[in-house]
Amino acid sequence: MISRPSSPPDHAARSIWRSADAVAVEIIDQTRLPHEYAVVRLRTLDEAALAIRSMQVRGAPLIGVTAAYGVWLALQTDSGDAALEAAVTLLAAQRPTAVNLRWALECMAHRLRPLAPSARTAAAAALADQLAEADLATNAAIGRHGLSLIATIAARKPAGSVVNILTHCNAGRLACVGWGTATAPIYRAHAEGLAVHVWVDETRPRNQGAALTAWELGRVGVPHTLIADNAGGHLMQQGLVDLVIVGTDRVAANGDVANKIGTYLKALAAHDCGVPFHVAMPTSTFDPTVADGASIPIEQRDAGELLTMTGRTAAGHLATVQIAPPTTPGRNDAFDVTPARLVRSLITEHGIVPATRAALAGLPRPQDI
Amino acid sequence: MISRPSSPPDHAARSIWRSADAVAVEIIDQTRLPHEYAVVRLRTLDEAALAIRSMQVRGAPLIGVTAAYGVWLALQTDSGDAALEAAVTLLAAQRPTAVNLRWALECMAHRLRPLAPSARTAAAAALADQLAEADLATNAAIGRHGLSLIATIAARKPAGSVVNILTHCNAGRLACVGWGTATAPIYRAHAEGLAVHVWVDETRPRNQGAALTAWELGRVGVPHTLIADNAGGHLMQQGLVDLVIVGTDRVAANGDVANKIGTYLKALAAHDCGVPFHVAMPTSTFDPTVADGASIPIEQRDAGELLTMTGRTAAGHLATVQIAPPTTPGRNDAFDVTPARLVRSLITEHGIVPATRAALAGLPRPQDI
Repeated sequence: MISRPSSPPDHAARSIWRSADAVAVEIIDQTRLPHEYAVVRLRTLDEAALAIRSMQVRGAPLIGVTAAYGVWLALQTDSGDAALEAAVTLLAAQRPTAVNLRWALECMAHRLRPLAPSARTAAAAALADQLAEADLATNAAIGRHGLSLIATIAARKPAGSVVNILTHCNAGRLACVGWGTATAPIYRAHAEGLAVHVWVDETRPRNQGAALTAWELGRVGVPHTLIADNAGGHLMQQGLVDLVIVGTDRVAANGDVANKIGTYLKALAAHDCGVPFHVAMPTSTFDPTVADGASIPIEQRDAGELLTMTGRTAAGHLATVQIAPPTTPGRNDAFDVTPARLVRSLITEHGIVPATRAALAGLPRPQDI
Repeated sequence: MISRPSSPPDHAARSIWRSADAVAVEIIDQTRLPHEYAVVRLRTLDEAALAIRSMQVRGAPLIGVTAAYGVWLALQTDSGDAALEAAVTLLAAQRPTAVNLRWALECMAHRLRPLAPSARTAAAAALADQLAEADLATNAAIGRHGLSLIATIAARKPAGSVVNILTHCNAGRLACVGWGTATAPIYRAHAEGLAVHVWVDETRPRNQGAALTAWELGRVGVPHTLIADNAGGHLMQQGLVDLVIVGTDRVAANGDVANKIGTYLKALAAHDCGVPFHVAMPTSTFDPTVADGASIPIEQRDAGELLTMTGRTAAGHLATVQIAPPTTPGRNDAFDVTPARLVRSLITEHGIVPATRAALAGLPRPQDI
C-alpha cells in the first residue's frame, strides 16, 4: 500500500490524485506526518471509507473529494443503483461534522443516478476530478481575497514589520486538494514577498498544528512558531498577533462557525484583544439547512486520542506513550461552534463577506458540477 | 536520592516534609508523575534550587515552602550572613512569576538575619515548618470558604445532580504542602458527600492536569474527566460546567490574576457563557507592589517542553517522543494574566472577596511567622 516518497511537495502540491494506472486514488497518510511521508493507494470503497474514518485524510474539503473518489472506486466493482446508493451512504457516515462530505456525495449521486450503470464509472472519475479541480480553484480565489487582509495590515505597520497570523488546527493544503483554505492567503502573501509569520496552535488532542501545519509551512519556507493551544490569548494580549485565520467544517445559516475544538476560545480572545478573526470558507462549507451552530452535530471521538501521544523517539522509532494515569477517563469533542458575533469576516472564493445571515444568503451556491 | 514509595497519599497527605533523620527535606518528584511515585531527598541548597528550577516541585505555595527549607539546608553548611544572603538570592532566582517564592524567602530572611549564626539553623527549620503548617491551615480555610460556592450551586440543581467544576493546571495538593488551593473546596465538598465531578484541563505543554491533577483526584476518588485545553469553552457552551476554580501564581493590586498559560482563555469562555470563574488565592499570593497584571513578569520556558512529550509505552518504559517536525521552532510562555473583570471572586483563607483593588487592600496580610 505504501509507495516511496514523491518529490517534495510545495504549496501548489496536491494532497490527493488519481494513480498513474488510473484505477486507484493516492493520498498522503496524514496520521504518519510529520515523522514519515507515506503515500497510500486506495483501491476500494472500504479503503476510501477507512481513510476518512481513520483520518489518513482529514480536513473538510479533502474529506469531500476523497469521498467523491470513493464513489468512483465503488462503481469499478458494481455500478448498479444499489451499489451507488450504498457507497454514498457508507461514505457519508464516516464523519458527522464536515458538511463538505455530504455536499460532495450529493454532487456525485445527483449526476450519476440518471446515467446508465455502464456509463457511471468513467463519469464518476471525471466528476471527482472536477471536484478536485474546483477545490484548487476555490482555494486559489480564497488566497487572492485573503491576501488583501494581510496586505492591508502590512501597509499599516512600520516598513519591514512582519505580519503575525495565528491559525488553529490545519486548514492547509493537507486539508484540501491544494493551497488550503486558511493557509491560502498566507501562501499567497509569502509568494508575493510580504513578510508573514504564523503562530501555529498545536491543536490537541490530534496535534494537527504540530504535525501538519508546521510540516507544510516548513516545506514551503513560511516562517512559523509552534505554540501550545493555551498560548494564543496571551500572545494577543501582548500585541503579537495581527490577525487570526482559521478554516471551518460547517457554517450555519446565521453565520455560526463549526471548526476544530478550541477555535471558540481563540475567537473570544481575538474579540477581547481587538484582533480581527477571519474564517476561510469555501461556499461548499456553508450549510443553509442548519439554522445555527447549536444544530450542527459535534463529533465525539475516542478518548484514547487524548490519553496517548505518538511521536519519534531519540532512537528514531515511532512510539505511542500514555500521558495520564491508566485509569483516567477522557472526553474528546472534536469541534466547537464559534458564534457569528465573534467572526470579523468570512473569506470565500467570491470575496470577503460578514458572517451574517443576509451576506451568506446572498452568496452564489457552489458550482454544481 | 530516591526512596521507595511511601503509603498512598490522600487529600490530607503532604507534598513536602522533613526527613526522619532531621537533616534533609523530602519531596515527591513531580516530573515523574503520574508514571512513577518517587520521593526525592534534598540535602543541600543546590539540590533545593534544582528541585524548584527543574519543577520536581512546582505550584506557587509549594515553591515557597521548598525555598524556605532550602535556606535551612544552606545554613547547615554555613550559617553566616553572606551564606544566608546568597541562599536567599539563589533560591529567589529559580522561578520568576510566583510571588510566594519571594514572600517565603523574605519571611525567612527577615527572621533569621537578627539571629546569631549559631542560632540560625535550628530557627530556620522551625520557621520552615511554620510556613508549611501555615500553608495547610490556609488551604483548609480556602476549602471551607470555597465549599459554600459549590454547596450553593448544588442546592440550586435538581436533587441528585452532580456539580461540574472545571480546573486548569494543578493547583492541587501537589502544588502546596497539602489540600491544594483550587482543589481544597473540591476535596472538602467530596468529603462532605456533595456529588462533584471535575473537568481536568490537560494543561499543555507540561501536562500538569493530565499528570498531576488527574493523579491526585484519582488517589482520593474524586470523579473526574480529562479534557484537552481546547475543550473547556465548548463544554461551557453546552451547560456542562457549573463553575471554574483555578489557582494563581500572583495577584496584582488591581485584582489581575497571573496563572498557568491558558487560564485567560477559560476565563473568557466562562464570562461569555455566564459560568462563575473563581480564583483560589492564599493571601501570600497577593502582591500589592505590582499595580496590574501587565507588570507581572511572565516566565518563558524552554520550547523543548512543547516539542516533546514524555509518557509510558505499552511495554511499560518511560519514553520521550518528538511530536513536531525536527526543525520546527516553538515558544513557551508559562503564564498568562486574566484581567480582574473576568474573575467572579477570589477565595482566600479569610473568605470570599471580589477581585477589586478595594477588597484586596482590605485583606489582612499573610501572618508574619
